[in-house]
Amino acid sequence: MKYTDLAYYNGKISPIREMQVPMLDRGCYFGDGIYEACLSFNGRMLGLDEHLDRCYNSMRLISIEPPMEKAEMKAKLIELVGLMESEVNFVYWQVTRGAGMRNHAFSGAETGASFWVMISPKTPTPIETVYKLITAEDKRFYYCNIKTLNLLPNVLYNQQAHDAGVGETVLHRNGRVTECSHSNISFLKDGVFKTAPLDNLILPGITRKHLIALCNQEGIPVVEEEYMLEELFEADEIIVSSSSNLCSNVSEIDGKPVGGKDPETLAKIRAAYRRKVKEDCGYDL
Amino acid sequence: MKYTDLAYYNGKISPIREMQVPMLDRGCYFGDGIYEACLSFNGRMLGLDEHLDRCYNSMRLISIEPPMEKAEMKAKLIELVGLMESEVNFVYWQVTRGAGMRNHAFSGAETGASFWVMISPKTPTPIETVYKLITAEDKRFYYCNIKTLNLLPNVLYNQQAHDAGVGETVLHRNGRVTECSHSNISFLKDGVFKTAPLDNLILPGITRKHLIALCNQEGIPVVEEEYMLEELFEADEIIVSSSSNLCSNVSEIDGKPVGGKDPETLAKIRAAYRRKVKEDCGYDL
Repeated sequence: MKYTDLAYYNGKISPIREMQVPMLDRGCYFGDGIYEACLSFNGRMLGLDEHLDRCYNSMRLISIEPPMEKAEMKAKLIELVGLMESEVNFVYWQVTRGAGMRNHAFSGAETGASFWVMISPKTPTPIETVYKLITAEDKRFYYCNIKTLNLLPNVLYNQQAHDAGVGETVLHRNGRVTECSHSNISFLKDGVFKTAPLDNLILPGITRKHLIALCNQEGIPVVEEEYMLEELFEADEIIVSSSSNLCSNVSEIDGKPVGGKDPETLAKIRAAYRRKVKEDCGYDL
Repeated sequence: MKYTDLAYYNGKISPIREMQVPMLDRGCYFGDGIYEACLSFNGRMLGLDEHLDRCYNSMRLISIEPPMEKAEMKAKLIELVGLMESEVNFVYWQVTRGAGMRNHAFSGAETGASFWVMISPKTPTPIETVYKLITAEDKRFYYCNIKTLNLLPNVLYNQQAHDAGVGETVLHRNGRVTECSHSNISFLKDGVFKTAPLDNLILPGITRKHLIALCNQEGIPVVEEEYMLEELFEADEIIVSSSSNLCSNVSEIDGKPVGGKDPETLAKIRAAYRRKVKEDCGYDL
């Protein structure tokens, strides 16, 4: 049997809208868990091993005992993607710290960690997507290096973008750019690819990592350094990246035109990413 | 039929461990919601109207459309508490931003907000409880005035306390005391009750509010001002307060003895709180 969309929870499989989970899962009342998301093409998930590595690292950072070995999680994800009708899918999974009567301290949790998956068809976003952005002060916590389920600020920032009719909200702490509501942000200036360093203010994006590797491969110098909002306004090209929007550029921030000054380097990076998707997943993006 | 514990979700009632909720509820993967908790004695919830006011204010602050009128929520909570066998209960409820396919922006949510309740028996904590504390840097977000479900840092801080064999973790931002993992913290010095002001770094605790009102009533001056960790070490008495631990004092922070220098004022506040619980809920605490 094939699914048009599917959910998985601790051994149960169903269409997403039918899946029920215990109210006592700590994900439901503490957001006590972590997640991952990637695209699958023809059953092959882009960057799957890197997503799994980050998944297990996120669990380690908040002391969640994994619900299974990494290889078993990988096999389960591949099995579930294989149950989908559609060729291109958005594959989302999360691990929560099990279920139990509500108690902040978790040493008395009644079950082991829970494994949740949701897979749905996805029309791939063209790699040439152009974003407009708005800016907002980054009021999130100092655990942004962990891909946790505590996403309410991200929800609010993304809704702000939606309300403003733009694609993303770029966040900054006193002018220092961190990332967007669910994307990393980088830029090209004088032929150099510059992006914020990996610290507790940003997520170590898998797509960000791919972009750095592709720049290295293409001979484009990469600098990982703190940068300010003003640098974005002076950038040659701005790149917003996430697992579902691999390499969007930016035409406007807060209504002011930006970028558009180095389409050649941008095109070179995009062509390299397209080749990678073709090589890794056999798909023409 | 009476329950030993009960859960409620959008119209369904069951024992807590049997309650299932849709995986697509935004509470499950974004922590996109807010909550409240209070004690009930003989069916009467302490500070219920104040908890409801804060609940509706939390919803307003993150643009959740309430699932019902405040009076209806109040009636439902009273009805549910009335179904419990036990005399003293911990009443927990949360409102999440409805259910829908995972999408950060919420203007396309598929349902209205969800109303969740969990009620379980509680042995009341003696008002004379003495806490030991540890300290930690407050790495939470700047939305701490909203009682959201994004509680992973609080979970980690509370587990740290548990691992250290103490009752709570007191948090500070560069030395400035904010609150504890799930309590407010105040202190007595030279007969004055001092507590952090209401800003986006602390929760406007209902019990904190009761303590201020009781101090006013008892002629104890109250100062709501930022204060540093060092002030706690020099305090006459330190008071940790939450809806389930109304007025604990503190004997030790990071292994150093603190407090114990103004037991008279502390006893006066506690006696006033006991009278309040008796008057409001007919219960001898």
